[in-house]
Order: sequence, then structure tokens, then C-alpha cells
Amino acid sequence: MAGTDHRRAGVSGGPAIILVAPQLGENIGTAARAMMNCGLGDLRLVRPRDGWPSKKAAAASSGAHAVLDEARLHSDVPAAIADLVHVYAATARDRDMVKREVTPRQAAQEMRDYIAAGEACGVLFGPERTGLLNDEVALADTVLTVPLNPAFASLNLAQAVLLVGYEWFAAASAAPAERLRTGQSRRATKDELMRFFEHLEEELDRNGFMRNAEKRPSMVRNLRNLFQRAQCTEQELRTLHGIVTAFAGPRDRDRTAEEAESKSRPSPSR
Amino acid sequence: MAGTDHRRAGVSGGPAIILVAPQLGENIGTAARAMMNCGLGDLRLVRPRDGWPSKKAAAASSGAHAVLDEARLHSDVPAAIADLVHVYAATARDRDMVKREVTPRQAAQEMRDYIAAGEACGVLFGPERTGLLNDEVALADTVLTVPLNPAFASLNLAQAVLLVGYEWFAAASAAPAERLRTGQSRRATKDELMRFFEHLEEELDRNGFMRNAEKRPSMVRNLRNLFQRAQCTEQELRTLHGIVTAFAGPRDRDRTAEEAESKSRPSPSR
Repeated sequence: MAGTDHRRAGVSGGPAIILVAPQLGENIGTAARAMMNCGLGDLRLVRPRDGWPSKKAAAASSGAHAVLDEARLHSDVPAAIADLVHVYAATARDRDMVKREVTPRQAAQEMRDYIAAGEACGVLFGPERTGLLNDEVALADTVLTVPLNPAFASLNLAQAVLLVGYEWFAAASAAPAERLRTGQSRRATKDELMRFFEHLEEELDRNGFMRNAEKRPSMVRNLRNLFQRAQCTEQELRTLHGIVTAFAGPRDRDRTAEEAESKSRPSPSR
Repeated sequence: MAGTDHRRAGVSGGPAIILVAPQLGENIGTAARAMMNCGLGDLRLVRPRDGWPSKKAAAASSGAHAVLDEARLHSDVPAAIADLVHVYAATARDRDMVKREVTPRQAAQEMRDYIAAGEACGVLFGPERTGLLNDEVALADTVLTVPLNPAFASLNLAQAVLLVGYEWFAAASAAPAERLRTGQSRRATKDELMRFFEHLEEELDRNGFMRNAEKRPSMVRNLRNLFQRAQCTEQELRTLHGIVTAFAGPRDRDRTAEEAESKSRPSPSR
């Protein structure tokens, strides 16, 4: 049942997020929301100061109940990480400690690999005001530090969880770095584009805009480049055809219509 | 003076963050905090619902005054983006619009390049509840969409600003993906490590732990690999030397001391 909820919520296996002695229920709620944004479902709480469950957490979670409802409560950090193989400690402060340190991006890639190999992972986050104790950091394999403005590096709890989760999600996201949204339409084919070029250039020839024969070839190239860059859809090309026809004016349109008629119908006199 | 503040706050040129019709002062404050976390200083506000300046914004900004104090107020989006060359519209919803779409990572890289070429950039964020209007999105070159759990993709305003700013900062961050923090100490040299190996193996030979001559070579290799993996500092090696000496026991230590003495001092009888 819980699994079903998780699947419907887009939440599936990923690192455990372990909040150590969080002070405010609100922050647990916003951290749960950030987890759900990033498809993470395994929330573990070590001695939350204001007790558990928390109405304030639920209210602040913006509906991330699939995460909050399955949060597990632990009495200390060793119990919370007992089943894990790889543990990261999120901390901004430099501590006088000999410890491997990674960025969230590096951690995300490593955790993807570990979890694919069946080795469970988790990330420890300390209380809002103080962060993790040095003894808690020493229980982790690796320190995780977000590269931020060194003059102003303090993040709130949910934002720290968000950045770790965002990198986790992005590490496997199929989202291309760049794409063209086309809504209900589709990109035009080159043949459709060519027919628009011909229509446009024909009307520009007709109204005398391209009467300078010397400049005509470069003007044609420039216009074609502009409309290539615009990456038009089929629907947009139809609009552009309509605009050219509208600008061509009533007399031109009539003449064009007459010409079209005279071409398609055999002259009665012949 | 303002520039001085900005420099001290680690804030320097970057894209403008344009909040369109933000509803809550708190969210302006937390967005300013997120900007400062990421070294961004150019905040622009279009018709903030609850007026400006805002005490709630200041209280929620956790001290990001260098950003809030210089925020500029605009009456509409065209005025807010007038001096910009490249504008991104942050939006999660898919709109029936033909528009280039990028991830925050791609946007960050592009904006780094544009700004280096002297072309000012900005990112539009819509009001908390509704996001940007379609007419506002149409004023941007490109849509910026954060890859997130599609079943739960809604971010609060400050978190959206944070993810855009984080990618901006990370795109130029010199932070290595992975490094070893060594605190006050330094990584040991191979010579220091070798002397520890010899000390350890000598004591293990002495107490009979490696009496199986056939297994001795692989045991030595395994131990040496383990301590190589641990990437010890010079300080840690001194601790390990002390531990080996302590384990060797008082009689051994005495004997070792005697031997050392007998080696270093010429025997009086000869």
C-alpha cells in the first residue's frame, strides 16, 4: 500500500535523508516537500526536538504526505544509519578533521552507482542552528559541501536537502539540456519552409521591395537565415503565409486571385 | 559604497533576478537570501503585492541586506527587462507555446558566456500561486524549467531562485568534485608511510601474528593496501606508530629500547 503511494507520488529508491535533531516541525515539512520534489522517499528523524508526528510538519509539507507518513524515528545516529553502507555528512563549516569531501553533484553520481550495486546510501543533516556535531560527522564516510558564496554560505535545512535531492534527480534525468517546446504544433519541414520563402520573396518582388537586383541575393539569404533561426512550426508558417497575403494588399490579392483563376481555367475565347 | 557592500558580501555581476508580482514579503526575503548564497546581487521587483520596502522581507532574509537594500522596483515586466539582452522565464507548467526550453544548468552556462560577452541577462519568476502569465513568458527568449519529479514539481519561490542561482554559482566554482580535507595536518609522504609499514610489520613478526611464512606476503600486501586507502596524514601516522608501540607491550618496548640503545651506543666492553 505504502509502495503504491510512493509509486504514484513519483518517489522511488534513493538515498535516505537523515535529519539529526531537527528543531522545527516546519523545517521537517519543507524538507519532506523538497525530497518529494526530487523523488526521494526515505526520511529518517533522529530525536526531533518538538516530537513526532508533527502537525506543523504536515502543514508545511505542501502535501508531501507520502514522505512524512513513512518517516522513521530513531534515537541516535548509529541506529539511523545501521543498514546503510555509504554515509555522507552535509556540512558547510570547515572542521579540523581529515575527511574526504565532495560536491552534491559528485555525491549524486556516486550514490547512483552505489545504489545500482545494491549498497544503501544516506545523507546526514544537522540541526538548523548548529549543524552536525563533529562526532556525528566522524560516523560518515564523506563530507558533502555545497559550493556557495563563502561570504554567505548558510542554507536553511530544506534548501540543503533540496540541493542534494536536485542533484540526485538531475543525475538520472532524461531532460535534455535544451529543447524546443512546440505545444500542439510540430516543427515545419524544409519543404513547408521553402514554400513560405517563395511566397514571401514573390510578394516582395511584386511590391518592389527587392528592386535592387544587386542587393537581392544577399537580402534573400538574410531573410531566409532569419526565418531558419526562428525554428518555425507548421502552424506558425501558416500564420506567416496569411500575414504576407494580408500585407500584399487587396489589389494584389485580387490580381493574384485573377491570375490564379486564369491559369487554372482555360480561357473561353481560345 | 553599495559596491563595497556587494564586494564584501561576495556578490558580483550576474543575471538579474526579476520577481513578478510576488505575493509575500517573506518570499522576497528568502529569495534574496538564496541570491546572496549564490553571489547574485541584482534583484528587481515588479509590483510586489504587499508593497516595498517590506519589513517581513528583511526579517526573512537572514541578513541578505546587501541584496534587499539595492532591489529596484518596476511597474511592469517590459520596464524591468529593458536593459537586458537575454531573458529566461522560469516556469514548471508546460504551456501551449512554441519556445526554446533549457535546464538551469544549461541556462547558467549560457548566461556565463553572454555576460562575459557584455550581454546582460535576467530570469523572470512569477507569483507564488499562479506563476508567470503566458504574455509574460512571451517576453522571454527562453523558458527555464527545473527537472524535478513530474508528480510533485511545484517549488516555492525561494527554492526556484536557489536552484537557478546554485547552477550559476556552480558553473564557475573552482570547488573540485572531490578532495581530501586534512584540517591542520598534511598528507603523509610515501617515505613516512613506508616507515610505518616497517614498524607495523616488524612488531607483527615479533609477536608471531605473521608466523605463517606462506601467507605472510599476501598479508603484508593487504595491510599496506588498507593503509594506502586510508590516505593518512602525517599526524595520523604518528598516532598509528604510537598505537603499534602501545600494543607491542611493555616488555617489547623495553627490549626495543634496549636494542635501539645498544645499536646507537658503542658497547663499552669493546
